[in-house]
Amino acid sequence: MGLTIAQKIIQNHLVSGEMKPGCDIGLKIDQTLTQDATGTMAYLEFEAMGVPRVKTEKSVAYIDHNTLQTGFENADDHRFIQSVAKKHGIWFSRPGNGICHQVHLERFGVPGKTLIGSDSHTPTGGGIGMLAMGAGGLDVAVAMGGGPYYISMPKMLRVNLTGKLSPWVSAKDVILKVLQLLSVKGGVGKIVEYSGEGVKSLSVPERATITNMGAELGATTSIFPSDEVTRSFLQAQGRGQDWVELSSDPDAVYDEEVSIDLSALEPLAACPHSPDNVKSLKEIGAIKVDQVCIGSCTNSSYLDLMRVASILKGKTVHPDVSLAIAPGSKQVYNMLAMNGALADIIAAGARVLECACGPCIGMGQSPNSKGISLRTFNRNFEGRSGTADGQIYLVSPETAAASALAGVLTDPRTLGEEAPIALPEHFLINDNMVEAPASEAEMDSVEILRGPNIKEFPVTGPLEETIAAKALLKVGDNITTDHIMPAGAKILPYRSNIPYLSNFCFGVCDKEFPARCREYGPSVVVGGQNYGQGSSREHAALVPLYLGVKAVLVKSFARIHCANLANAGILPLIFKNEADYDKIDQMDELELKNVRKAIEDNAPVIVSDKTKGIEIETEAVLSQRQREMVLAGGLLNYTREQN
Amino acid sequence: MGLTIAQKIIQNHLVSGEMKPGCDIGLKIDQTLTQDATGTMAYLEFEAMGVPRVKTEKSVAYIDHNTLQTGFENADDHRFIQSVAKKHGIWFSRPGNGICHQVHLERFGVPGKTLIGSDSHTPTGGGIGMLAMGAGGLDVAVAMGGGPYYISMPKMLRVNLTGKLSPWVSAKDVILKVLQLLSVKGGVGKIVEYSGEGVKSLSVPERATITNMGAELGATTSIFPSDEVTRSFLQAQGRGQDWVELSSDPDAVYDEEVSIDLSALEPLAACPHSPDNVKSLKEIGAIKVDQVCIGSCTNSSYLDLMRVASILKGKTVHPDVSLAIAPGSKQVYNMLAMNGALADIIAAGARVLECACGPCIGMGQSPNSKGISLRTFNRNFEGRSGTADGQIYLVSPETAAASALAGVLTDPRTLGEEAPIALPEHFLINDNMVEAPASEAEMDSVEILRGPNIKEFPVTGPLEETIAAKALLKVGDNITTDHIMPAGAKILPYRSNIPYLSNFCFGVCDKEFPARCREYGPSVVVGGQNYGQGSSREHAALVPLYLGVKAVLVKSFARIHCANLANAGILPLIFKNEADYDKIDQMDELELKNVRKAIEDNAPVIVSDKTKGIEIETEAVLSQRQREMVLAGGLLNYTREQN
Repeated sequence: MGLTIAQKIIQNHLVSGEMKPGCDIGLKIDQTLTQDATGTMAYLEFEAMGVPRVKTEKSVAYIDHNTLQTGFENADDHRFIQSVAKKHGIWFSRPGNGICHQVHLERFGVPGKTLIGSDSHTPTGGGIGMLAMGAGGLDVAVAMGGGPYYISMPKMLRVNLTGKLSPWVSAKDVILKVLQLLSVKGGVGKIVEYSGEGVKSLSVPERATITNMGAELGATTSIFPSDEVTRSFLQAQGRGQDWVELSSDPDAVYDEEVSIDLSALEPLAACPHSPDNVKSLKEIGAIKVDQVCIGSCTNSSYLDLMRVASILKGKTVHPDVSLAIAPGSKQVYNMLAMNGALADIIAAGARVLECACGPCIGMGQSPNSKGISLRTFNRNFEGRSGTADGQIYLVSPETAAASALAGVLTDPRTLGEEAPIALPEHFLINDNMVEAPASEAEMDSVEILRGPNIKEFPVTGPLEETIAAKALLKVGDNITTDHIMPAGAKILPYRSNIPYLSNFCFGVCDKEFPARCREYGPSVVVGGQNYGQGSSREHAALVPLYLGVKAVLVKSFARIHCANLANAGILPLIFKNEADYDKIDQMDELELKNVRKAIEDNAPVIVSDKTKGIEIETEAVLSQRQREMVLAGGLLNYTREQN
Repeated sequence: MGLTIAQKIIQNHLVSGEMKPGCDIGLKIDQTLTQDATGTMAYLEFEAMGVPRVKTEKSVAYIDHNTLQTGFENADDHRFIQSVAKKHGIWFSRPGNGICHQVHLERFGVPGKTLIGSDSHTPTGGGIGMLAMGAGGLDVAVAMGGGPYYISMPKMLRVNLTGKLSPWVSAKDVILKVLQLLSVKGGVGKIVEYSGEGVKSLSVPERATITNMGAELGATTSIFPSDEVTRSFLQAQGRGQDWVELSSDPDAVYDEEVSIDLSALEPLAACPHSPDNVKSLKEIGAIKVDQVCIGSCTNSSYLDLMRVASILKGKTVHPDVSLAIAPGSKQVYNMLAMNGALADIIAAGARVLECACGPCIGMGQSPNSKGISLRTFNRNFEGRSGTADGQIYLVSPETAAASALAGVLTDPRTLGEEAPIALPEHFLINDNMVEAPASEAEMDSVEILRGPNIKEFPVTGPLEETIAAKALLKVGDNITTDHIMPAGAKILPYRSNIPYLSNFCFGVCDKEFPARCREYGPSVVVGGQNYGQGSSREHAALVPLYLGVKAVLVKSFARIHCANLANAGILPLIFKNEADYDKIDQMDELELKNVRKAIEDNAPVIVSDKTKGIEIETEAVLSQRQREMVLAGGLLNYTREQN
């Protein structure tokens, strides 16, 4: 039987397990990446493992999230990460060098290799045929130490692309279409592979836009073939030698398949407050726009910004619109500064922000109250922009630029003929902002620089025999990691300080939750479907751990968050019978009697609700390995036990 | 008797009073400017005055302070200011267009005119021979309404410049030298005029650097002649018609004079934590540097950044240094993007920030803890960088760039020959980010956009007959407006919300002060010398007013703050006998018996300290007009009474 692209890479990297959907598999990891918001914790965990030098082919630490620096914490974190990287064999991409996914694609990604990153948009690397997955920081730490990365073997979902994009229709519209078709849960437990004639017409940055935002499908990852287009891109990056061809076998079997005719697509937008709330611009109408933001790991490539510059050239941003643009990498920024496109962007009145994630992660440029903001980003969760009642629409760079000029949501197809913009034959190559690690001879003398905001991560012990806990929080469906552990400019700088962060846990849902945890002690969080969707931040597990959460009992989990809970030693439980969700109320007294034995025996976990006098059957969403991990009190304890 | 430059302008604008040092004079104001941090309040005050359209020749509202936008408040403020400006005849410089002082110099300033701005660095305009002064927002509101601006007639201080700057020595070194000679109190009650042969060798941006940072001398303002250099600059800005010649009469009489031989100057730095703590680079030594920031209204001109670009070209920022650069205006930014200099800056690894005030006002780029940061800015007050233990050195752009490459404080004279950089014959002129006000016919239909964070300013009533109050705070010398009402990224966004701001009043000195005010009611603040130095923010008066402060009793005041207290209706008192400062303790019960009568009679104010059983003689620092104002309960009540 033939294999899909992802199955081929998995086969080449399989350390344990069977390639059957749902089976726990261990993968050898070739490359890792971290960003600074999750990185400090990941490197603290790596340090705790006691491995002197990373065992991967290439590990890169990026600084791109906490770049506003409204307090000492961020610069301290950057220095900590820089010093850890230098000491332990990790490449360091300095602040100002750009967004991890954009830079990694340009300078480090290799087709056919495995990559995990402590950022949920790591699948960007699928644009050049990598098996690139978002993971918790601890998983990344383990992979840096040479350990495998464990996932449940995904199903294969094929997206067959036919035709060719019409002028002014963009890669962003492709992934918005996929989200419309599949929803934010449609990719759970699956790898999305793009194939068909339509693939050839898509450049690498366009493919990367699509795989990047595949994260919003809940997919394990998304991947494109590595073909001549990939080869040209790598050659233009001076990395032709990194290219290998990769395609699925003709007789590869996919579990699911959808088809999209690229030529039939029109400009789309994801309406507030979900990336799958997708409508055509026509359906939405010419709504008045207050702000437009262009950038993020989804749409900040050379190609994206050249298209934006050509739309803005000689025009002026509408007086009622604030247009902010953040280039995705120093390479992009520098090329635009050299070829005049940046001058066109500035002349038109755009606010050019530092080359970083910026407003996409709520670091600045919060819109006005009730403001309508068009963004080329990947997420429009409620409140993520920093403005609680902000109305965020996700659009293509072309739609964004056209609307910024008009002051209302505007179909770029009204702009007339589209100027052809090609990728350059040679990108500007200057890696002077990537610091090489110290040599093995010098690494011991590198001093680690630790700031006062960097606190230890919470410790935990082996799973108790029986857990008595209160249901201190009950929430609904589609709870995101932004609900559990909000980000934004006021909290993100404290990602190295779990005690401080704990004050904001579930703040979006219930500001009193942290206080209740302090008052009542051990707790269970009860939730609905797709609990933990969104980012890969392990803080959404570590902070509840710190607050005494012993188990999370829901209808279903998002993949990365479920793994993060297990890594933290928190029990991820699902209802056997979803209707039982309605029987538990917040503040009920619960008991998980003989839970340790149930996990050891892979038996159902019985949650007895003492308040209601009922027993509810639940199941731990844990592989054999994860069961051992939870019994040990989390991955770090487990890893220590193994060594 | 001949006149100085400033005396000539004053004479041409004198509405009331006599041109004798110390006399209260009223000046007709030709131009005003506001920035957004002080602007919202100024425009609320303007609205309260009920004047439909500004009566100045040109009033401009800039957005340059609150540009990080980590919440909805800033974008709301920007929209409020934009709508007020449009309605009431004010030009609006959109976010992204640059720093008020830089843009005003480029596009609006006119030699011989008067300008007041709700920002303490308004004296930048003195670089082209304007009489440009920082003022409280209410003063600016009154001036927009056509009312005079009142100051105490300043003394004249002449700085005689001889010789010519050596290569790599900069205008910044000139003003640092003046600060070293005169101290941060040396300019109080004075106008600093630059003259002598040396003036001719200084370009307008260099002169503007010097007058800008004259604010740190405590001077009323600083001014240069308007000469051929000024004419060339204005011509290059397409504004040759705005030029008039201005110089002092040969027999002008100055109250003081100092001389500086430009050719003898060497690169200097203001060491932590005061702009007058000036040493030569040699004296300081090659200290290790963590961060370098280039920009601000002091040093972000075309000339400054071209020099920086030429130093950085082909090099890489030292791995241990974070170099942030914020261009001063869209004109500067656009020209650098067109001529390749920006590409050189990006290539070297600088983090290019939005064209705005940025880190100078603590909006981002806080250094690491205990970090040493070299900045081309104008203030290095403790904590202003956002890092409480940050060590900030103020230096020239040349020293900043040289040090960013070396990683240690570096004399730029070690760089070899200096590339000659001339001002362009024609600046790039594109005012598309300045919005014209609505015509008189259309102004009535402009709707004012008010966000939920915009609260009314505190109201007050006529001065009471007798004030009973507790000395709820006692502080020392040189208290800055940053002590009284901190700025920074966490507080500055709330400048339109006095109740919220009040939680942070005097937070640097004593976090419990606001709570004490709420507990005990009416209060007096006791302080030492030079109380209220620093910024023009009237919030440093409005917030204490809101908290119930009735009087501030100190050894001496900084000019603008003292006027802001009177404007707010708070009594500014000084000790007749400075030794009495030591007799009052914090929490003493005070009584100002018959204080209303004392103010009416221009008699000493007797403060009886009930706790100590003593009486202390004090004097209100008020002109006749200010006495009437304080009796009425502040300038707004007074203005209403007058109408």
